[in-house]
Amino acid sequence: MEVTNKYIVIKAHIDGKPEESDFEVKTEPFSLSVKPRSNDIIIKNLYVSIDPYQINRMKTMSASQKASEFAVGISPGQVIDAYGLGKVVASGNPKFEKDDYVVGLISWGEYSISQGFILSKLDPMGFPLSYHVGVLGLSGLTAYVGLFEICKPKKGEKVFVSAASGSVGNLVGQYAKHFGCYVVGCAGSPNKVKLLKEELGFDEVFNYKEENDLNSTLRRYFPDGIDIYFDNVGGEMLEAAISNMNSHGRVALCGIISEYTNAEKRAIPDLLTVIYKRITIQGFLSGDYMHIFPEFVTTTIDHLRAGKMHVLEDVSIGLESVPSAFVGLFRGDNVGKRIVQVSQD
Amino acid sequence: MEVTNKYIVIKAHIDGKPEESDFEVKTEPFSLSVKPRSNDIIIKNLYVSIDPYQINRMKTMSASQKASEFAVGISPGQVIDAYGLGKVVASGNPKFEKDDYVVGLISWGEYSISQGFILSKLDPMGFPLSYHVGVLGLSGLTAYVGLFEICKPKKGEKVFVSAASGSVGNLVGQYAKHFGCYVVGCAGSPNKVKLLKEELGFDEVFNYKEENDLNSTLRRYFPDGIDIYFDNVGGEMLEAAISNMNSHGRVALCGIISEYTNAEKRAIPDLLTVIYKRITIQGFLSGDYMHIFPEFVTTTIDHLRAGKMHVLEDVSIGLESVPSAFVGLFRGDNVGKRIVQVSQD
Repeated sequence: MEVTNKYIVIKAHIDGKPEESDFEVKTEPFSLSVKPRSNDIIIKNLYVSIDPYQINRMKTMSASQKASEFAVGISPGQVIDAYGLGKVVASGNPKFEKDDYVVGLISWGEYSISQGFILSKLDPMGFPLSYHVGVLGLSGLTAYVGLFEICKPKKGEKVFVSAASGSVGNLVGQYAKHFGCYVVGCAGSPNKVKLLKEELGFDEVFNYKEENDLNSTLRRYFPDGIDIYFDNVGGEMLEAAISNMNSHGRVALCGIISEYTNAEKRAIPDLLTVIYKRITIQGFLSGDYMHIFPEFVTTTIDHLRAGKMHVLEDVSIGLESVPSAFVGLFRGDNVGKRIVQVSQD
Repeated sequence: MEVTNKYIVIKAHIDGKPEESDFEVKTEPFSLSVKPRSNDIIIKNLYVSIDPYQINRMKTMSASQKASEFAVGISPGQVIDAYGLGKVVASGNPKFEKDDYVVGLISWGEYSISQGFILSKLDPMGFPLSYHVGVLGLSGLTAYVGLFEICKPKKGEKVFVSAASGSVGNLVGQYAKHFGCYVVGCAGSPNKVKLLKEELGFDEVFNYKEENDLNSTLRRYFPDGIDIYFDNVGGEMLEAAISNMNSHGRVALCGIISEYTNAEKRAIPDLLTVIYKRITIQGFLSGDYMHIFPEFVTTTIDHLRAGKMHVLEDVSIGLESVPSAFVGLFRGDNVGKRIVQVSQD
C-alpha cells in the first residue's frame, strides 16, 4: 500500500537563530510494504523529540564535519533523522514485527524507514508512550549519566544546573535532590522558577534574566561554593560557575545552547581557577553510556512509581508544529521535554 | 651564632610581566641556633626552585585569595617561600637532625626556618643534589602525575606537550616516549627544538614562534588527531590543541604561562568540540598526589640508572641571580629546570 508521507526539511543551512521560515513541509509517495529480501523496518512515527543540538547539524560547517567526530550534518531538502517513538507497520528485519513499538532514530516525518540502526523494541511498561521519548528516553539517560557518571556526586554536595526547566535540566535537579545534594537551578521566567521550586523540589531557583552579575548571583546562592555544575548553556553562565566552584569541582558539559546560535557568546573560562581548584570539565554524549540504560531505567521507574519524579512534558500536536516547536527552544519557550505528537497510536 | 641572612623580596605586587627591578635583596640578622623548646628547623639553603607559578602569588589579586583555594599570596617586603633543598644547621624538631639534607618548602634566601611543614628528609641516593629539586622533585612528580594519573595514556596514543623544553614539559615527553606514545612538543627556539628531537627522543618538535596558524600546524603534526594534550601555556595553543583532539581526548591543565602576565590572551576553547568529542579538561596540582611519590621516584630512578632519561638543568649561581632567573622564565630563557644554587654544600 502506498501513502503520502509528509516530512520536515530545512530550506538552506541555518547559521544564526532558526526561524520557522527556515523550514518547510515536503511530501513524497511512501510505500508501507517492505521490498522483498529487504531488511527494512517501516515505522509509523508517533512521537518525535525536539532537541536543541539539532541546530548544530543544520549549520553550514556541519556539512564538512566527519560524521565520526561531530553530529552528522543535515542537508537542505533531505529527511531529518531524530530520536522518537513509533509503531512498526511492516518489517523485513527478524528483530522487529508489525505493531511493535520502537524507540530510536526515526525522523521528523509521518513515516520512517529504518535498517534497525539505533532502534530498539519498546515495552511501554504501563507508562505513557511519550515518557519513552523523554524521562525514560535519551533526555533521562543524559541527565542520569551526566550527573552520576560524569560528576560522581557525594551526598550533601552542592549542585548547580542551568536551563533547569529544560528537558534534561529538570531531571538532573530531581535526581540530585533524591540523591541527597543541595540543588540550585536557573531558568528564564518567573513561572519556571516557581514550578521548579514549588513542584520539583529544587532548593533554590533564580531567573537569570533578572540578574546583572552572574558571578555575584552564584556567590549569593552558593556562599560555600559549587561542587558540581551541570551545564546546558555555556557562555557567561559557565564562566560564572567556574569562578564559584570549590576545589575538585566537576563540570559536566552537556550543552551550550547560548553559544549554538551566537559564536560571540563563547565562554572564556578562568583556567587559573581550573588549575588551582583542580576542576574537571568534561564533555559527554549519552550515546556512549548505553550500558547504563538498564540501571537508569530501573532507578527512574522506581522514582516514578513512588511518585517522586515529576514529568515535565511540552507536547505539541501534528507534524506541522515541528518547526515552531524547534524554533521556540531557542527562545526558551519550552517547559520540560519538548515533543511533537505526529500521530495517535 | 648569628649571621646575616640575605633574601629576595618583591617591592610591590606585580601584575604584568615581571622585571628584575621589581625585586630586591634584603638582609636580616639570623640566628643559627634553635630557641629552647622550639620545634624549629634551621636550614642552610643550597638549591631553590624557580617556577613560573610564583608570579600568580605576586599579583595584587592574590592578596585577597583564600589560601585554601589559591596560591598563597606573597606580600611585598616579605620572605618568599619556595620549593628547594637545604641542609639542616640546627633542629628542635625530633624528625630532623643537624646535617640532614631536606627538600620541601624553604625560601628564596640563604637560610630558612621551617616548622617541618612540607619538608622531608632526603636521601640523595647517589644522585646530584640538584636532581631532587627537579627531575626527582616536584617538577618530575608534576610531569608524572599529569601524564599518568590525569591523562591515563594508552600505548600508541598521540601526545602533544607545550613548553616542551621547560622543567615539566621535557619530562612529560620523555615519560610518554618510554611508555610507548607518539610525542610532539613545541618550544620557542631552534636550539630547543634540536635538543628535544635529537637528544630527548621526541618524535617531532616545532618552534611555535615560526608558526602563523597553530590550528593548521597541529593538524600537520597530528593528521590523525591528538589524544592527550599536556598544557603548560594556555591561550591560543590550548584552543588549537582542543580543535585538533580526538574523541575522548584528555587535556591536563598544568600551567598557562602565556596567560599569567597577560589576561588578554585567555583561551576561548571551542566547547562544542569538547562536547562532541567528549574531551576532558582537568586542572591539577602535584601536591594532591604525594601518595604517588614513591612510585614516581622508583620509576624515574630506573630510567635514570638505565641512562634513558636526560636531565635538563639550568642552574645559576648565587642568591642574587634569583630575580634574573625568575624574570627569564617569562621570556622562555630557560632550558629545562631552572634552579638557583644559593650555597655550596
